[in-house]
Amino acid sequence: MPYSKKALELHKKLKGKIEVNSRVSVENMDDLSTIYTPGVGAVCSAIRKRRNKSWEYTNRGNQVAIVTDGTAILGLGNIGPEAGMPVMEGKSVIFKKFANIDAVPLCINTTNPDEIVKFCKQIEPSFGGINLEDISAPRCFDILKRLEKELDIAVFHDDQDGTAIITLAAVINACRLTGKKFSDLKVVVNGAGAAGMAITKLLLTQKFKDIILLDSISAIYEGRNNLNIYKEIISKKTNKSKIKGRLEEAMVGSDIFIGVSKADLVDERMIKSMNEGPIIFAMANPNPEIAPDRAHKAGASIVGTGRSDYPNQINNALVFPGLFRGLLDGWKKRVTFNMKIAAAEAIAESLKPTKEKILPSIFDKGVSDRIARAIKNN
Amino acid sequence: MPYSKKALELHKKLKGKIEVNSRVSVENMDDLSTIYTPGVGAVCSAIRKRRNKSWEYTNRGNQVAIVTDGTAILGLGNIGPEAGMPVMEGKSVIFKKFANIDAVPLCINTTNPDEIVKFCKQIEPSFGGINLEDISAPRCFDILKRLEKELDIAVFHDDQDGTAIITLAAVINACRLTGKKFSDLKVVVNGAGAAGMAITKLLLTQKFKDIILLDSISAIYEGRNNLNIYKEIISKKTNKSKIKGRLEEAMVGSDIFIGVSKADLVDERMIKSMNEGPIIFAMANPNPEIAPDRAHKAGASIVGTGRSDYPNQINNALVFPGLFRGLLDGWKKRVTFNMKIAAAEAIAESLKPTKEKILPSIFDKGVSDRIARAIKNN
Repeated sequence: MPYSKKALELHKKLKGKIEVNSRVSVENMDDLSTIYTPGVGAVCSAIRKRRNKSWEYTNRGNQVAIVTDGTAILGLGNIGPEAGMPVMEGKSVIFKKFANIDAVPLCINTTNPDEIVKFCKQIEPSFGGINLEDISAPRCFDILKRLEKELDIAVFHDDQDGTAIITLAAVINACRLTGKKFSDLKVVVNGAGAAGMAITKLLLTQKFKDIILLDSISAIYEGRNNLNIYKEIISKKTNKSKIKGRLEEAMVGSDIFIGVSKADLVDERMIKSMNEGPIIFAMANPNPEIAPDRAHKAGASIVGTGRSDYPNQINNALVFPGLFRGLLDGWKKRVTFNMKIAAAEAIAESLKPTKEKILPSIFDKGVSDRIARAIKNN
Repeated sequence: MPYSKKALELHKKLKGKIEVNSRVSVENMDDLSTIYTPGVGAVCSAIRKRRNKSWEYTNRGNQVAIVTDGTAILGLGNIGPEAGMPVMEGKSVIFKKFANIDAVPLCINTTNPDEIVKFCKQIEPSFGGINLEDISAPRCFDILKRLEKELDIAVFHDDQDGTAIITLAAVINACRLTGKKFSDLKVVVNGAGAAGMAITKLLLTQKFKDIILLDSISAIYEGRNNLNIYKEIISKKTNKSKIKGRLEEAMVGSDIFIGVSKADLVDERMIKSMNEGPIIFAMANPNPEIAPDRAHKAGASIVGTGRSDYPNQINNALVFPGLFRGLLDGWKKRVTFNMKIAAAEAIAESLKPTKEKILPSIFDKGVSDRIARAIKNN
């Protein structure tokens, strides 16, 4: 049975995938008087005196909000908050399963960046962190930036930094396997949405020879027309040779292709124009920029996609549970570049990579813990 | 050990009382592909096509938000959102235990009525209902009224209508026991906050001889100074004899006293000034307007308070779980007066009352179901 059919049947049968449970027993009036009025009044008063006690006396320190406006759900785009909920409940399930975190999906009825920022600030007292999810670019850049400045709890946009971290981990292990050195490599990133921008920013912390980022128009270069402020900033740090053409031109003589764009944009000829044994991460969902078998035939040494039914799935589900575990346990207020790099390295080091398995599986024991430790210690 | 100490120890040990759990099993990649990407995409698309499908495919239909701004927590007043959380988690526990409802506490960082209304509208796609909690009067009146108009899901302010429903249930059974007829009775309600206003409005649907509502200044009568819009409206429907004095005067010749005010405002002399065998509900928290033994000594036939350590506790915790069960199961968008009356009658009829037990215990089997049915069928 295809996953779509299985999923529809399961969701219809269960009416959703999560629940809010009690962790205390309430069997008699005595229990009730302890967990509720009058006993609870003393707990409220203690927090009133020292607000930080909410991390000790309530579930806040283990609780994350998953906030989306429904504008960039999976490959489906702007489908609205109600239709985004099945994904957010799925994330909540993954949070619990792999990091024992209580994640509350909040699919909200506004796409206005000011309102989304305000909303996140309003819920701050109830949560230890906020996972922004599937909010479309470029609004998500501004929202994240403002929240990082204005919130006193950690905020993380999975589509940006989750994807960037897992991609860097894949790049590290692909290079380990093939013996490539970062400083010799030219990287092409196709797609300048949430994921492409964040991947490029994270790769810029490493010493690659050059990185070329492309949007749907062409390569991004300094001085090009049609650059928003985010692309303009990145144009000054990338594309040293000032390539102005489209993907076909950018890929010539490059070593790594990272696609977070659309299906079927890459063909064998383009792969052949790259340097020997290129690394191809064709991560467009649900269908990659080029199918793995075609990429291999054209000479790719290592191929990864976003899909679970090909080898080397590059998926941020591996990252966010452990990452938030580390943020919560370390009482972190910011996700720094050092943390992101450390998380990527922790993932890469968690296995002895092979060409068919450059990344651990989310089901491999201990990966989430390793990521959590990396975040906590950085 | 006093409840306050027990509560502090418990909360410190457990770090909160709730958790968000998965209702699906995730043991392998196949499971993950069904509950998350790619399978979940088909569920999202189905909801996108028909938004109401979110009630079938997500947890929405069993999920309630508990929203507070922390301005009127228990008897503690405006202690802020963080300090309100222990109460809200307690409510969530009660929701689950007595009605199997998933309730998410959202203690928010604003006390502005416009912002609270906007907030509730923003979270609407994720919930089947909203339980407003511990929002101070008179802001709560306007917030509830606007939300009842602007939301497409049910909204209920427990401090208003929860208290009103349980009070009406107590009045019904106290009168049943003492053989008093509503149309012969003069009722005094002391306290014109969230609870007092809602109790008065609900009692006005019954045929009492007269109802006198008092705020901290005096009895409320038509034309009095210092009436906000809500009190002004109520002044036209109550206090037929235009009593202008304070509580002492209002109680003379009355039959039922309902206190939702402050400790020790009532003495034996005032009880003796009432008609024979009066009914006294001294519900101020944590200390009643008059202690039960003193009220009985002065001639009261039936006495109730808000406390669990005296007989006849009158507490809205008995109401809200079943009420929301009924709202969710019946896909109700509004809480009508008919529903409130039916819920009060269902509670009253759920036991054969005695003077020491006019109301069922929250632990009595079936009470929550009875309330749910009453709401669903009205």
